[in-house]
Amino acid sequence: MESVVAGVDIGGTNTVFGIVSSEGNILARDTISTNDHKGPEELIHIVSNKIKELLNNLRTQIPSLHLAGVGIGAPNGNFFRGTIEFAPNLKWKGVVPVAEWFEKELSVPALLTNDANAAAIGEMIFGGARNMQDFLFITLGTGLGSGIVVNGEVVYGHDGFAGEIGHVVMDLKGRICGCGRKGCLETYCSATGIVKTYQELNPSASKETDARIIFEKALAGEKEANEAFRLTGEMLGLALANSVAYTSPQAIFLFGGLAQAGEILFKPVRESFERNLLMIYKQKVQILPSRLRESDAAILGSASLIYKMLEKSS
Amino acid sequence: MESVVAGVDIGGTNTVFGIVSSEGNILARDTISTNDHKGPEELIHIVSNKIKELLNNLRTQIPSLHLAGVGIGAPNGNFFRGTIEFAPNLKWKGVVPVAEWFEKELSVPALLTNDANAAAIGEMIFGGARNMQDFLFITLGTGLGSGIVVNGEVVYGHDGFAGEIGHVVMDLKGRICGCGRKGCLETYCSATGIVKTYQELNPSASKETDARIIFEKALAGEKEANEAFRLTGEMLGLALANSVAYTSPQAIFLFGGLAQAGEILFKPVRESFERNLLMIYKQKVQILPSRLRESDAAILGSASLIYKMLEKSS
Repeated sequence: MESVVAGVDIGGTNTVFGIVSSEGNILARDTISTNDHKGPEELIHIVSNKIKELLNNLRTQIPSLHLAGVGIGAPNGNFFRGTIEFAPNLKWKGVVPVAEWFEKELSVPALLTNDANAAAIGEMIFGGARNMQDFLFITLGTGLGSGIVVNGEVVYGHDGFAGEIGHVVMDLKGRICGCGRKGCLETYCSATGIVKTYQELNPSASKETDARIIFEKALAGEKEANEAFRLTGEMLGLALANSVAYTSPQAIFLFGGLAQAGEILFKPVRESFERNLLMIYKQKVQILPSRLRESDAAILGSASLIYKMLEKSS
Repeated sequence: MESVVAGVDIGGTNTVFGIVSSEGNILARDTISTNDHKGPEELIHIVSNKIKELLNNLRTQIPSLHLAGVGIGAPNGNFFRGTIEFAPNLKWKGVVPVAEWFEKELSVPALLTNDANAAAIGEMIFGGARNMQDFLFITLGTGLGSGIVVNGEVVYGHDGFAGEIGHVVMDLKGRICGCGRKGCLETYCSATGIVKTYQELNPSASKETDARIIFEKALAGEKEANEAFRLTGEMLGLALANSVAYTSPQAIFLFGGLAQAGEILFKPVRESFERNLLMIYKQKVQILPSRLRESDAAILGSASLIYKMLEKSS
């Protein structure tokens, strides 16, 4: 019998899902729109049926295939309750019992957490944090998400909502954040943040610009684009140095579109990080690129919630 | 047989120690100078002999008394190694294997951590956090110390040095800190910090002023003294709101001289805290005074390191 796990990532636009082997291979996958349905219950019904289809197809090659569980990553996902709660990026209202619905549809255990926590567990089970007990995982996408791992476990906090480093206030008079406050880290250090920084440096730049265009301009030697990466790295390095004072991690993994810029981002991050670290932490903490492939991370991360549970119970 | 634990707190000036019952009563205690000795090995030899004396005296009343272990709190104490490392407030050089020496002297297990972590465990075993799994413990003394508890365990980090919230940089161009950097939280929110704030508000104030004098002036209605508490509370509330985004604790305990100011400090802290919290955390996290008595906390906290260990192994 070969046990596999379903990984589901519910995003603002698309819901991606797949079947993941215990070695971290995605054996099958599919994507559907998150919002073209009557509501979340219908979405979960359709995804569950598609997961059954994927499993049936795989069974033509591996007849002994057995589904051990389904892991779900979603914005504002609450690990303790298995619910998605008041997610600003989803069109659903209130508290949605997603894990419970998946358990009913698929008759296997379901675990849910936010997407950044899921990816952090993915890094721990299948990526660069395989032998680490204490690390931070930072996703640099539209916003800045984070997963904090202490003693080999994701920190969920008393209410299941720990790990919102993107909403640490860096400047009380700073940029307006989607959360309703000002100066949150993610208003500077994210794909959206670097665009804003670039536009401040270069007011005549096209309104249509995005982080990828700025990256290409920086590679081509444009001064303002390089300066935008330097300022982003400077701020992120300081925020990460402050973060070390909480949990003293062994490493910090950077993931997401912006992290793929490579040295153009990592160099100023590392310089600012080391400069701003408290003495006892200097030269001890690595800033590393995530070893999860961008296209696989959402499914792998979600599935690893179940593999992590199986690891503990074995 | 009644098991008791020795608690030792090594401070910059004095070393206090005592014998603690499992109910959290200090059955006997003593204090000696930290520095009037040839070096740390002699200090630990003398303290160990005095602990033996205290035990022998107690045995005249409770003959079955049994020493289960010795817990030690000290600046820059490393839990994993049982060492005090490069402590800026102690006159010792390098890495000092304090726990090992105590184990040899007393033939019982010895555990060591920094004083704020020890007090956090004291709050968990004997104080207001008895039923809490996730909380922060903040000491407002000469500096700002912190202990972070996640899932019922102090966070030590990969190197044993986690929990230095006092050295989160609040303002890169701010006050010079003893750690060599600028704008650390403890340069504002500590007994030393409030004196500086007060002197900035009232440049003609006596150089001799201290946090207690400012407290008394504030009670007497002096505007600058009240403003100094308000500004201190404002900054601490913001820093604590940011801290919640890491570990989402159920409560934050404030301990130490400054915390004894009561509402004059707690009111502006709570107001700033709630105002600066991310929406998902609002109205969920209590800011509470520590329930450890100031005079007992150092000994109780250190001893609770051993009680915590015994709890886990039972």
